[in-house]
Amino acid sequence: MELDTLNWINSVTIWGKSTSLLLSATPPAENSALVLASVLLSLVVIYLASKIGGELSNRVGLPPVLGELVGGVIVGVSALDLLVFPEGGGNASNSVIMNFIQATAGLNQQEAVATFAAQSEVISVLAELGVVILLFEIGLQSNLKELMAVGIQATVVAVVGVAVPFAAGTVGLMTFFGISAVPAIFAGAALTATSIGITSKVLSELGSLSSKEGQIILGAAVIDDVLGIIVLAVVASLAKTGEIDVTNVIYLIISATGFLLGAILLGNVFNKSFVAVVERLKTRGELVIPALIFAFVMAYLAAAIHLEAILGAFAAGLVLDETDKRRELEKQVVPIADMLVPIFFVTVGAKTDLGVLNPAIPSNREGLAIASFLIAIAIIGKVVTGLAVFGQPGINRLAIGVGMIPRGEVGLVFAGVGSASGALSKPLEAAIIMMVILTTFLAPPLLRFVFPQTTTADESETAVLTTTQVLPK
Amino acid sequence: MELDTLNWINSVTIWGKSTSLLLSATPPAENSALVLASVLLSLVVIYLASKIGGELSNRVGLPPVLGELVGGVIVGVSALDLLVFPEGGGNASNSVIMNFIQATAGLNQQEAVATFAAQSEVISVLAELGVVILLFEIGLQSNLKELMAVGIQATVVAVVGVAVPFAAGTVGLMTFFGISAVPAIFAGAALTATSIGITSKVLSELGSLSSKEGQIILGAAVIDDVLGIIVLAVVASLAKTGEIDVTNVIYLIISATGFLLGAILLGNVFNKSFVAVVERLKTRGELVIPALIFAFVMAYLAAAIHLEAILGAFAAGLVLDETDKRRELEKQVVPIADMLVPIFFVTVGAKTDLGVLNPAIPSNREGLAIASFLIAIAIIGKVVTGLAVFGQPGINRLAIGVGMIPRGEVGLVFAGVGSASGALSKPLEAAIIMMVILTTFLAPPLLRFVFPQTTTADESETAVLTTTQVLPK
Repeated sequence: MELDTLNWINSVTIWGKSTSLLLSATPPAENSALVLASVLLSLVVIYLASKIGGELSNRVGLPPVLGELVGGVIVGVSALDLLVFPEGGGNASNSVIMNFIQATAGLNQQEAVATFAAQSEVISVLAELGVVILLFEIGLQSNLKELMAVGIQATVVAVVGVAVPFAAGTVGLMTFFGISAVPAIFAGAALTATSIGITSKVLSELGSLSSKEGQIILGAAVIDDVLGIIVLAVVASLAKTGEIDVTNVIYLIISATGFLLGAILLGNVFNKSFVAVVERLKTRGELVIPALIFAFVMAYLAAAIHLEAILGAFAAGLVLDETDKRRELEKQVVPIADMLVPIFFVTVGAKTDLGVLNPAIPSNREGLAIASFLIAIAIIGKVVTGLAVFGQPGINRLAIGVGMIPRGEVGLVFAGVGSASGALSKPLEAAIIMMVILTTFLAPPLLRFVFPQTTTADESETAVLTTTQVLPK
Repeated sequence: MELDTLNWINSVTIWGKSTSLLLSATPPAENSALVLASVLLSLVVIYLASKIGGELSNRVGLPPVLGELVGGVIVGVSALDLLVFPEGGGNASNSVIMNFIQATAGLNQQEAVATFAAQSEVISVLAELGVVILLFEIGLQSNLKELMAVGIQATVVAVVGVAVPFAAGTVGLMTFFGISAVPAIFAGAALTATSIGITSKVLSELGSLSSKEGQIILGAAVIDDVLGIIVLAVVASLAKTGEIDVTNVIYLIISATGFLLGAILLGNVFNKSFVAVVERLKTRGELVIPALIFAFVMAYLAAAIHLEAILGAFAAGLVLDETDKRRELEKQVVPIADMLVPIFFVTVGAKTDLGVLNPAIPSNREGLAIASFLIAIAIIGKVVTGLAVFGQPGINRLAIGVGMIPRGEVGLVFAGVGSASGALSKPLEAAIIMMVILTTFLAPPLLRFVFPQTTTADESETAVLTTTQVLPK
């Protein structure tokens, strides 16, 4: 090798303007300093939207996640165009951030397009890592033993609350709106989730968290999460093949349930090795890095057998929740989730074009009809769950049903995964988001209406309130 | 809009195999589930390399960061080819991870190339976010008041320890090896850093941390960091323009110093508003999200005025270190840094092709000569700093000089930034990495040789040892 080749052989780039010096290697069309700058600006927009939205939502007694979602809608393609994505039909010239960087750094159109593509890719993957971490954290917080102890009543309520909205939603969309099977099933599945965060918060404000109704609602909401994640894994996989083949559906249900049960059973063995390895490590990240390795391996395995990465992350969380390191790990995962999860919620909001539901435009009326239908089924399908409670004379059946209404973040996970898989049309996706927003908005006033306010929140319930407030859901 | 358009209008993809269903929208060549899967696998490889390398390094008394770097070299282009990047000359068919995913998911060549490009982009940006968080954390841990109190002796040692290796390295590379100005200046600048972590650890093992020599070394190493970051900002900016223009150099030195001083001065005002805002927030991430917003805005501003993003992150850390929220924030940043910083160190190692220094290939001899020269200057340039100590009769000048030898992570930041800017040729980059590795390997035995072991480590010094062990440097 000649000495000359030790010289500066690459081209040198100042803010996107390539200046070839000695030898001009083909420069990549996008430039890493610019991609980093646009990612940093996007993250600043995401964090501002999530924090302002979350705080305002919290001030009016709604869950922060709703504000983060609405914050995302405001900075996204529906309104400010600060955060737009190619799959939402956006391009570099729609993005206010890209226009700003293009103007300040003097980019040409081609460089701006390449930088925009790289930035969108990075933010999308960060959002996907965010939902992986979210489900890992939910798994860490779901105690298997408690899950098994909530009893038959909660299980029945949960199963009815998954089956009725799913069946009614899917059949209704296919029958009344002529939507084909896969997107109808996806939208039906999005109706199954129950958000434990908002209900438990309102119940504790009403002093009814430890009532029989409150306990059944909380237990059923937790079981709903597990059922919902299995349903999502099955439905998302159907969306990938695009065919509703009975053999395939059976395979998927068995593999999703088997994956979860297998992970839990193997986890009981693996638990001790995990703790033993962690205790021998002496350098920084001795707990969180092995936990992330486990979570990411499980997420990869779930994806590799055609299920969803989040199912693996959830299973990993369930397994590690059984170890002695649980509390310490939960504490360390909190800041990581704080950093990554808002990227997911804001991105889901930003990618949703609520403009397709604008009632002023006649062609949108069908989409609006679908949204209204989904909202009606979402409410009715959960209210009827109260009727499934048996052997409990004098119980407030309406209160139980109303307590299951809010969808929250698991509904958003469905919308996000559905959007990424390409199974949902834009109006259907916007309708699902509207359904999640409205059920979450309606639940607190409805709950206050159906629950007679017996006592004021006592000390122990205030403690629960604080805990559920800091949890992601 | 017709009802049909509400149907499944997008193409549906199973693991990269596109199956068009109703209407075939142009599918992106890469598929988001596959990109996520390859990012997850890459992160698993990175975390395994960093943890195994870091722990082994720690076991033999070397700093974990050295093991993380060597772990990166082993999984990277020099050896296992698990983690390769396009800018290192790698392509999808070189990457073991991509070959694995291509085989298991049945990708064609074109899809594999697109997935590889997206995955490399994401990992590279995650590594850059890692070094931004690293410098933010170093800033948080650098106390401004302590920095001003270490005294004139430490300042003189630091300035000499920056000036001598920088001048000797740059002039030597240009004179003896005919390397042009910009890469020579970059390599010279990489010689300036001092790693406080390894020296403070060895000193505390020797019971010499509170000796006069130990205090001067630690003070000088901290000042070195600040000087080094300013030098890096100036040099990296020169690399972008590619010209050594005296006016420009003066502008850069003034703007880098001004940015840092301005941030600190404004920070004293901003401090109180930051704490006031944080105290009014009631939802999750109430401290870490505002801190990240501030750090990312500062990083963006530093990049926008043609300095380096890490200078802004470092300044943000310095500013927030002056608030009452310091301790709580440091604690919350630790898991985030644990997650992102190893991606940076492993990526730097993985991108470095040590094969270009293989002595069996005759054409590599020039590169080896450069590496040997850099290592000699790295050692001599720091040993002479002991001579700069004045008015301290009987002080162990050799011990002070030897204590400044290890380069550690700041040297790696130079190599990483230099590589990203395209200023460094591959042999020069490999020579810098070899210099960092060897000075870090050599420092502990040399220190034990020149420091007479006076006492065994006492209680307070063991405490310091523990602190520095858990810090990133």
